[in-house]
Amino acid sequence: MTKLALITSNQGKLREFRSELSRLDIEVTSTDESCEEIQADTIEEVVRYCLKDLGGRGVGNVIIDDSGLFIDSLGGFPGVYSSYVFRTLGCKGVLKLLEGKEDRSAHFSCCIGCILGSGENIVVTESVSGRIGTEEKGNQGFGFDPIFIPQEDQRTFAEMSIEEKNPISHRGKAIRAFAEMLKRKRGVR
Amino acid sequence: MTKLALITSNQGKLREFRSELSRLDIEVTSTDESCEEIQADTIEEVVRYCLKDLGGRGVGNVIIDDSGLFIDSLGGFPGVYSSYVFRTLGCKGVLKLLEGKEDRSAHFSCCIGCILGSGENIVVTESVSGRIGTEEKGNQGFGFDPIFIPQEDQRTFAEMSIEEKNPISHRGKAIRAFAEMLKRKRGVR
Repeated sequence: MTKLALITSNQGKLREFRSELSRLDIEVTSTDESCEEIQADTIEEVVRYCLKDLGGRGVGNVIIDDSGLFIDSLGGFPGVYSSYVFRTLGCKGVLKLLEGKEDRSAHFSCCIGCILGSGENIVVTESVSGRIGTEEKGNQGFGFDPIFIPQEDQRTFAEMSIEEKNPISHRGKAIRAFAEMLKRKRGVR
Repeated sequence: MTKLALITSNQGKLREFRSELSRLDIEVTSTDESCEEIQADTIEEVVRYCLKDLGGRGVGNVIIDDSGLFIDSLGGFPGVYSSYVFRTLGCKGVLKLLEGKEDRSAHFSCCIGCILGSGENIVVTESVSGRIGTEEKGNQGFGFDPIFIPQEDQRTFAEMSIEEKNPISHRGKAIRAFAEMLKRKRGVR
């Protein structure tokens, strides 16, 4: 069984990684390792800098993950700073910013980076389009899930079970794309 | 005459540094040099990391500056991410977030970091307390100046000339504290 350590303090993320990767015989553990997160325009830049930081210290077999909610009518806000904005303004602050705005389109993006034991890097990004609801709904998931309604659905992410959310979510898609690359790199099938 | 290069693309900042430091016989130039800005809870952490990054590359005689607007009733938002929030939400977004809130207290903080030619570092932070107005006023300064009213005043920073703002502003205070330290370190009087 392959073992990879996810750098996160977010138990929700760890659950989502485990739920997707266990079926591929990859065990995901958590680790106290950390890396510097830079201020940047895209989550990919944040992830690539973290990988550079970790790689420079010889850390391997780790996964990092950065994700963000990008709201079109707010110029992409809160974007790369989503977790900070969630901690300070919360879902209510974002709803307030959208009061009276017709365009509520948004997308969640997730970028996963990994340093293999060999030192080789994998970086993948996936997104899910949707819209911001007019009120918080549901109590599953985490972060801005209670206000994000993915396209072709009427429910927020927080109204979905992990089994319903993962097949369509930015993180679910990114984890599967990551697993595919990992299998190819390792010649596993 | 001492020469220090300020790392900034903000002409408003450059003007404020020049206005304060020219009287101390310090010439402030601008430079294309850059450093990584990390995501952190305080502007000091951002500045210290930049200095480490620059120092590691042997860059000297440079000044960096990070500042932020911290609004009490918003958990310190936009804080370290003020320039990003200004670009995306602007003053209007912040005013919207404060609609209906009684507590409008806030402070601006400015942290200045410098690597001397000797490799020695100087780091100083200064703040100014005040409140967020109910509308944008004035067209001087930059960033959130049109909505910030310093304590003991009725005008926003954007309604003040640079000569009125510098004596009380976070950046003016930080630049003067920095100049004092610089003089002491260099034995200049």
